Amino acid sequence: MKSVAIIGVGHTKFGRSKEGLLELLCDASLQALENSNTYADNFDSVYVGAMCPGKFNNYTGIASALVDRINLIPAAADHIKNGPASGGSAIKAGYQAIASGMSDLVLVVGGEKMTHITTPGFITSIVATITHHEAERLHGVSLPSFGGLLTRAYLHKYNAKLEWLDDIAIKNHKNGSLNPYAHFQKTIQEFMESAIKKGKGNWANIKEFLKDNSRNPIIADPLRLFHICPISDGAAALVLCNAEIAKKYCDTPILIKGIGQATDTHIIYEREDITTLKALRTCSDLAYKMAKKTPKDIDVAELHDAFEILEVVESEDIGFFKKGEGAKAASEGLTQIGGKIPINPSGGLKARGHPLGATGVAQVVELFWQLREEAGKRQVSGATTGITCNFGGFGNNIVSILVERM
Amino acid sequence: MKSVAIIGVGHTKFGRSKEGLLELLCDASLQALENSNTYADNFDSVYVGAMCPGKFNNYTGIASALVDRINLIPAAADHIKNGPASGGSAIKAGYQAIASGMSDLVLVVGGEKMTHITTPGFITSIVATITHHEAERLHGVSLPSFGGLLTRAYLHKYNAKLEWLDDIAIKNHKNGSLNPYAHFQKTIQEFMESAIKKGKGNWANIKEFLKDNSRNPIIADPLRLFHICPISDGAAALVLCNAEIAKKYCDTPILIKGIGQATDTHIIYEREDITTLKALRTCSDLAYKMAKKTPKDIDVAELHDAFEILEVVESEDIGFFKKGEGAKAASEGLTQIGGKIPINPSGGLKARGHPLGATGVAQVVELFWQLREEAGKRQVSGATTGITCNFGGFGNNIVSILVERM
Repeated sequence: MKSVAIIGVGHTKFGRSKEGLLELLCDASLQALENSNTYADNFDSVYVGAMCPGKFNNYTGIASALVDRINLIPAAADHIKNGPASGGSAIKAGYQAIASGMSDLVLVVGGEKMTHITTPGFITSIVATITHHEAERLHGVSLPSFGGLLTRAYLHKYNAKLEWLDDIAIKNHKNGSLNPYAHFQKTIQEFMESAIKKGKGNWANIKEFLKDNSRNPIIADPLRLFHICPISDGAAALVLCNAEIAKKYCDTPILIKGIGQATDTHIIYEREDITTLKALRTCSDLAYKMAKKTPKDIDVAELHDAFEILEVVESEDIGFFKKGEGAKAASEGLTQIGGKIPINPSGGLKARGHPLGATGVAQVVELFWQLREEAGKRQVSGATTGITCNFGGFGNNIVSILVERM
Repeated sequence: MKSVAIIGVGHTKFGRSKEGLLELLCDASLQALENSNTYADNFDSVYVGAMCPGKFNNYTGIASALVDRINLIPAAADHIKNGPASGGSAIKAGYQAIASGMSDLVLVVGGEKMTHITTPGFITSIVATITHHEAERLHGVSLPSFGGLLTRAYLHKYNAKLEWLDDIAIKNHKNGSLNPYAHFQKTIQEFMESAIKKGKGNWANIKEFLKDNSRNPIIADPLRLFHICPISDGAAALVLCNAEIAKKYCDTPILIKGIGQATDTHIIYEREDITTLKALRTCSDLAYKMAKKTPKDIDVAELHDAFEILEVVESEDIGFFKKGEGAKAASEGLTQIGGKIPINPSGGLKARGHPLGATGVAQVVELFWQLREEAGKRQVSGATTGITCNFGGFGNNIVSILVERM
């Protein structure tokens, strides 16, 4: 099996964009080609991760359209779908193309364009097409409702406090404020101060602000607005290459040392324990084994906090904390930049934003910057090894990628 | 690079089905698991090829749903999209998973469910989402209109006759009549006799029948009904495995010896010559080189005749006939079973049907049967090597797969 290196990346600013999906994918791709010094080279394959361009943008054949627009014809081009983990799956497809020897130079780009749809409930209903149709969707279940359910189950089972999830949101917004590509580049303190300035109210501190139903309404009981990621547009890209030739393009390639992907029951109700992500345990185990690493070797992680409870549960099932201890650990600052195991220095899905298909790629882009000491004010000092969790479905199809400085 | 073998297949009857997409995918998959004696084994990965389940069936996360339904959890599961070549791209993804050493046992299944949509024009408009949005789709272009355009250009450039395309339809319906999985299992002679019996008219012979506007109306001038594939439901599946362990499962594995995929301009107008499929030349060349074969080594081919003109152009660009000679060769019987190079013994898209994502997989299933001498009355005698052309977009993303008896 050939080793695979990341030699360049691209990342649009996440948030509300006036560009269409294809333009966002182009922007991130062209940045990655420039960043990797591969613009004049022959690409063998292009993989696009996007959850729903057919439904969101009335666009199919998005990968074929992209290779034409960025002048990579005759490179092979495929669109990879795995719900909100489409980006992670696209990276895996690109990895396998090189590891097999079929390709030497591969572009992977993930993206989604959603904010033009003006009814958030319509977006939620499109995302809900990944749930089980008869057992879940017909009854009106949505992804946020699962987030609420998981939160209640976790708080009850482990005697944890909802405020600990506030602390995660505070951390992720703080990290996002240091990330020029984040959807939200404001701390929650700044959100509060801005509301005070506009005469929307007055609060003694952030904790009070976060308890105010008018500023932080309940979305899926007990989850409030600031526990849930926004709807975002954006794209992120990686150039992967056969590690043997990586130094031709850049001085500090980042190696993909491990990739795991695993599935779990489609119907949430069928799981033994909703608070344990079996698919993450399996896939991160595959990634650790492939890389010959353990959770102790990890310096920085990008986890999939579509709902802040997910960052908690994932931080446990990926091996950083014992079951039931993740929320408390986060509230004690162990997952901050400078803490024991920094999680989501990018701001995570909460603050960087969550353009579905882009997320899995953006996670690896952030680790690329972190491991190359290019993360600016949010740099995790001395990080050489990182891991991701990209969460498809509601935990029924998860991809975990382990990267290391070459 | 590890060698990859096909050890078992599945194929639903193509046509109008009362089953949903997930059920069709399950049927083909379970047949393939049984056929390959792998039912009790641990699968590493599942790849689903489907063009548009989001738009046709309001379903996303179809791969995650499938692994759950057929009890293959925790296998990795991804949905691969490349328009009508989604099946071919899914096979390539599965191939790379094994060739890289990441997987030993992989299920690939392609399928589509469309006939529940009662307005054919609505289906055509969904398929047209793969065309270039500004240069083509906004002006009302559809895939059949490109078929008509290509036909006129070819007939003009090479002084060919439209009746030669009738001969291809006659051949493919004859082959389909011998295929128990085909959408249409009737020769055109039988269609005519049935119409006469029902008092719909009277015709001296098939050629007269095919000229009758009431029985064979013009769909996209000059293409008539019998020059165009139907709208079909169906699914087809392959079990791929590391060739080193293939004999553990079956006596006669079929090897995937070459796979190529290539893109061309998205906008048809930008091509130097619409009658030449550059992407097919490139991708079949890749497949031949990888397999160390030439067109002369091929005993049987499954080409993508969504419109009968495509079988002609593809038979030239894949290397069987000189440019401009494909239609005449077909009309002279060279592509019949028993001819110089039998094309579409399955009946092709014209008679087997074209459930978009299923087609690329069904082509390889047919070759699996042909190379194992399991094709019954449509057997190509002594065939040991075959090739496919699976056509995505309007020729802007093509996959070609070369298989051989082990």
